[in-house]
Amino acid sequence: MSHTILALSKLNSAERDSLYQQGFKILDPEALTSADYANIEIIYGWDAKIGPAILATPNNQLKWIQSFSAGVDYFPLAKLKEAKITLTNASGLKAHPIAQTILGYILHFARGLNYYVNQHNWQTDLDQYTIAELPTVIFGTGQIGRELARQLKALGGTVYGINSTGHPVTNFDRTFSLDDYKEALELSKVIINVLPATDKTHHFFNEAFFKAAAGSFLYVNAGRGVTTDSQALIAAIDKNLIQYAALDVTEEEPLNQNSDLWRHPNILLTQHTSWVEHAGQGPASNLFSIFSQNIPAFLNNQTLPVNVVDLNRGY
Amino acid sequence: MSHTILALSKLNSAERDSLYQQGFKILDPEALTSADYANIEIIYGWDAKIGPAILATPNNQLKWIQSFSAGVDYFPLAKLKEAKITLTNASGLKAHPIAQTILGYILHFARGLNYYVNQHNWQTDLDQYTIAELPTVIFGTGQIGRELARQLKALGGTVYGINSTGHPVTNFDRTFSLDDYKEALELSKVIINVLPATDKTHHFFNEAFFKAAAGSFLYVNAGRGVTTDSQALIAAIDKNLIQYAALDVTEEEPLNQNSDLWRHPNILLTQHTSWVEHAGQGPASNLFSIFSQNIPAFLNNQTLPVNVVDLNRGY
Repeated sequence: MSHTILALSKLNSAERDSLYQQGFKILDPEALTSADYANIEIIYGWDAKIGPAILATPNNQLKWIQSFSAGVDYFPLAKLKEAKITLTNASGLKAHPIAQTILGYILHFARGLNYYVNQHNWQTDLDQYTIAELPTVIFGTGQIGRELARQLKALGGTVYGINSTGHPVTNFDRTFSLDDYKEALELSKVIINVLPATDKTHHFFNEAFFKAAAGSFLYVNAGRGVTTDSQALIAAIDKNLIQYAALDVTEEEPLNQNSDLWRHPNILLTQHTSWVEHAGQGPASNLFSIFSQNIPAFLNNQTLPVNVVDLNRGY
Repeated sequence: MSHTILALSKLNSAERDSLYQQGFKILDPEALTSADYANIEIIYGWDAKIGPAILATPNNQLKWIQSFSAGVDYFPLAKLKEAKITLTNASGLKAHPIAQTILGYILHFARGLNYYVNQHNWQTDLDQYTIAELPTVIFGTGQIGRELARQLKALGGTVYGINSTGHPVTNFDRTFSLDDYKEALELSKVIINVLPATDKTHHFFNEAFFKAAAGSFLYVNAGRGVTTDSQALIAAIDKNLIQYAALDVTEEEPLNQNSDLWRHPNILLTQHTSWVEHAGQGPASNLFSIFSQNIPAFLNNQTLPVNVVDLNRGY
């Protein structure tokens, strides 16, 4: 019997052909009826209505979900665990463009472009920094953190990493555990947050954190909005504890038109768009390159080898 | 007899001590009188009034001038050649910060920060590029060009170089001669100009050039202002031949308040400040590190080994 995939993220014709040749049946959302729910074994992508409806279908066959994003905090993780469904994420897919956006943020403030962009007369006495003069700590040593560390090192930077246990990671000069983050802050001028949203990281970047970060040049959040108490961040900038911030993610998205973040002179906002590249056709454009690596194991009833989410940790 | 240096650029106390120990006499501009002119053998730095006055002094002893800048177009090169005076420049001193400013320009436009910086509502459909998607041609394969090429390569870029003969240079994927520049333009989306000002490069970047560059994403001038016809550049942008420009240098500096460049929405201006770093104490902060390398040869009446300007070429 053939395996049925619900293609909520787009598959191109080459990807479809590859799946057909391996004996898969592809369902597209346009043709989907609730009668199909019980037969679906794989969801490629996600939809906040269709996904839970399939999960709630009695005797459903769902075994594997391929997320189109790296962060999976919007999935019903406890239910997936209970139903023994494997969730794979898109971690690494957009590490390169996201790292380049973060590098762009750093150089924007370091090279004074935040001033020059609205400057209309000759101004030569602005202080500027090179990457070498801005030691950086990256909270999160996953694929984005590692790629950013690599790029910063190539530009002469010193890069520290924070992860749960402080285990060493390629490309970082030194790593610290989350408990020891203050030690890393003392060595750094730039703070990069690419942490996932979990119970542990919710509002981790709060008033106490920003107080410990006093003297920092720049705070960047390109992870998840809920990790950061944005009112505490604004207060820290207004008290000169931190000079600038660049945020790709916010607690609420789309960000409310009335948010103080929009017009703060020391805060640069992008709209959860740090991952965009010209060649891309949307967030899932290369998703199949991750998904397809797990197909042989799936067909052999083996544990999937690539990008499997730990449903307890949530990343 | 001791050799006399006129210190028009600042020397710190360690640098002074080093010179005294090697038997030099140091004259400071504050204490300078025209009676001293005939005795000066070395000018460290330059001044548009004092320099020519020394050169015009009968029987002067001037042998060596150390420029504080990489570009030397403001020196009386023909007179220096006639008087057999050696001119050394500051090439390489600021290659690293200048390369990082140029990288900042590229990422500013590539990652859409030019839009986001003045964006006050949620906007997610902006096209963006990574460095890998923007092949770059650098006009000028000297120290700035090479350092920029190195940084771009580390970020996934493809980098072409233009120099007088097309000779290969470290860090560049391929080089072309100035005569073959159109071939390089066809391969590139970003154009970086770090050429010196010479008779050959004056208004090299003119209407005909920008026509040949049609389809380019970004034009950067961090070399010399006079290489670029800025009216032709503005016209090329307004005709959509080129999308954006970033200029650190302009034909006139300081740039006139009424210049059209100041408020053009697709042009980013900095004020001949691409070289600034936080640790720096002015443009000549590390100049002594170049100058001091030539002292032993000077004391032995040998040809100076480091950063000697070809007075015929002008760089």
